[in-house]
Amino acid sequence: MTFHQSEHSLLVIPGPIEVSDDVLFANASPSQSHMSKSFTQTFGEVIKMFRQVLVTEHGQPFIVAGSGTLGWDMVASNLIEPGDEALVLHSGYFGQSFTDCLETYGAKVTQLKAPVGHCPSREELAQALKAKKYKIVTVTHVDTSTGVLSNPRVISEVVHEVSPDTLVVLDGVCSVGSEEIRMDEWSLDVVMCASQKGLGVPPGLSLVCASERAIRLVETRKTKINSYFASWLNWLPVMRGYEQGKPVYFATPPVQLICALHVSLKEITSKPIQERWAKHQQASIDFKQFVTDELGLKQVPNDPSIAANGMTAIYFPDGLSASDIVPRLLERGIVIAGGLHKEIKDKYFRIGHMGISVIDTTTRHDLEKVKDALRNVLNAAGYVNKTVGNNTK
Amino acid sequence: MTFHQSEHSLLVIPGPIEVSDDVLFANASPSQSHMSKSFTQTFGEVIKMFRQVLVTEHGQPFIVAGSGTLGWDMVASNLIEPGDEALVLHSGYFGQSFTDCLETYGAKVTQLKAPVGHCPSREELAQALKAKKYKIVTVTHVDTSTGVLSNPRVISEVVHEVSPDTLVVLDGVCSVGSEEIRMDEWSLDVVMCASQKGLGVPPGLSLVCASERAIRLVETRKTKINSYFASWLNWLPVMRGYEQGKPVYFATPPVQLICALHVSLKEITSKPIQERWAKHQQASIDFKQFVTDELGLKQVPNDPSIAANGMTAIYFPDGLSASDIVPRLLERGIVIAGGLHKEIKDKYFRIGHMGISVIDTTTRHDLEKVKDALRNVLNAAGYVNKTVGNNTK
Repeated sequence: MTFHQSEHSLLVIPGPIEVSDDVLFANASPSQSHMSKSFTQTFGEVIKMFRQVLVTEHGQPFIVAGSGTLGWDMVASNLIEPGDEALVLHSGYFGQSFTDCLETYGAKVTQLKAPVGHCPSREELAQALKAKKYKIVTVTHVDTSTGVLSNPRVISEVVHEVSPDTLVVLDGVCSVGSEEIRMDEWSLDVVMCASQKGLGVPPGLSLVCASERAIRLVETRKTKINSYFASWLNWLPVMRGYEQGKPVYFATPPVQLICALHVSLKEITSKPIQERWAKHQQASIDFKQFVTDELGLKQVPNDPSIAANGMTAIYFPDGLSASDIVPRLLERGIVIAGGLHKEIKDKYFRIGHMGISVIDTTTRHDLEKVKDALRNVLNAAGYVNKTVGNNTK
Repeated sequence: MTFHQSEHSLLVIPGPIEVSDDVLFANASPSQSHMSKSFTQTFGEVIKMFRQVLVTEHGQPFIVAGSGTLGWDMVASNLIEPGDEALVLHSGYFGQSFTDCLETYGAKVTQLKAPVGHCPSREELAQALKAKKYKIVTVTHVDTSTGVLSNPRVISEVVHEVSPDTLVVLDGVCSVGSEEIRMDEWSLDVVMCASQKGLGVPPGLSLVCASERAIRLVETRKTKINSYFASWLNWLPVMRGYEQGKPVYFATPPVQLICALHVSLKEITSKPIQERWAKHQQASIDFKQFVTDELGLKQVPNDPSIAANGMTAIYFPDGLSASDIVPRLLERGIVIAGGLHKEIKDKYFRIGHMGISVIDTTTRHDLEKVKDALRNVLNAAGYVNKTVGNNTK
């Protein structure tokens, strides 16, 4: 049968994102045994393709029923022993949450905080690393609360220069599949994400990839891992087993979601991953130009060089607030997100542009629809762009 | 559109189970915001209906992306403080795994072990409770590895008589939706399960329900909860929020799976839950009669009174093994499960009969198909039932 998903409002929040008919149809696959030959092959291929997306040869994927949040537990419970020092590079809401999670597992956390719209600089990082020895440094690649894009390549460079034993952990929840990530080349020790953003699959999967160095560290830790479900030692035989075609049981895998992920990863890896990054970047440049130049609005990230390619965070114009924009877009069939970062919660809104919304531009015109609606809604709210003509960018 | 799932082999392992077209179609729902009004209502209703299934008024559901295994982490991380004593009633593989999980969180575990095919007796339990004071007692309602059915009503009665402060935790992974459970009437403190068995939904959800007493205990514990993702304190505002129509964020919920669960729970709660239990019981009696009387095979559970209603675990006849049965059933389009309990792993097989396979007997004839195929495969393997005529049961 040809499956077409039901008519629905266009979802352009920074995740979950719009999902293709093929992916949704796979999510409605008939029941099959999690130990069957065919599912084992599917899962094995998923593990291999996830490596391709992260451009890693020897990274060890862990793909588990859960959410992005569970990835933090995986990092913290496996890599942290009580009393270990962790440095969290903070560029928004999610740095604080990751901190809470690390502390739960006994880490002593130092946060390198940047003001809203900024991320810590190379110099600040180098200084922090010289002041104290850290077991791990964590980076939120794209902080979904601010749309600020960090630079994991540079961060990893600095860490490897100043403190080569320190592990680099990339929270790629809002970046894997939409931002450039080269796990091996950049010497990242962990990259973690979820299914519902750049990977274009419904929510319900936690995806983590650990370097050989990270795995060795877990295998040689002095204290026991303080989690059962998040313990890599419990999942390692499972992931290795499925990849080798021999299913191993620890917990029943989310069969249909793995099938959906399989379809999405097949599509993603059918072309060079660089093309996917470039498409996200181009769509982002176009959309941000529309927002700043045509609409005259201000982005939350302080500088274009630190603005995410998969989402845009925008301040409301003076005199307007969420109630003038969000419900009116909804009436026009477009779902965007309000603010999340508590310091500026009511002052801005967020729009996601990831996955098929930017890749499938022949049959879909998602961002055109968003632009039209945003233009109309702002007009209807009486907003006039006073910067037009003055903008030299 | 009318959705029909693809042709596929009949899945009659003890979970995942066959899922209805309506449930699968809901699992292919278009993307929607996890904070939207409509999803909030769906999730709120799911929480309320889950209470109905467990026949509890004030139990607090936690419905989270994960698997049954994550439910153990929830129990252990929330209810156990380091050094707490736990008593695990062991009726198969899953008692040992629950023990491993409890120990991970610092519990001192005593296992009350029964031989394969048995479960601990009322007297053994009373004796154990008199010998030591336990914080919690855990029971595997149906141990999927043996098909042994424990009696949580009686167990809870004994616990409340002998050691009223001890919490009773029911692992209902292979029983919720297929076996009688009355959480309030039986004074159970936790019931935990997963989506892919008696609830008739694809795998990927961990469902836990905690009594008011259990929640109070968590809120007044002396040490911090040793998990972030499994901490009820992190999920409480989320569950209460969605139920009250006000979405709260901790982790992105698995939207499509919650929609699928909504459809299944609507169907389940549209009739008195007692009818559902009775249908499972009747189907089980019929199937077990076929297995023992017509085929002359022996069940793993030692006595019919401790045999699960949602599955049957059967010893191979002398001279036959898995390779004579399992692949030949597969050729006939029927997927059953081999052995799991390590003491008897190669000596038995398992067949599940839960959900639509036993409820929807007008349009489906799942168990008839299984019976026919099993009869044929055994015949083809040269098996003759020598007990026919001698069987007085």
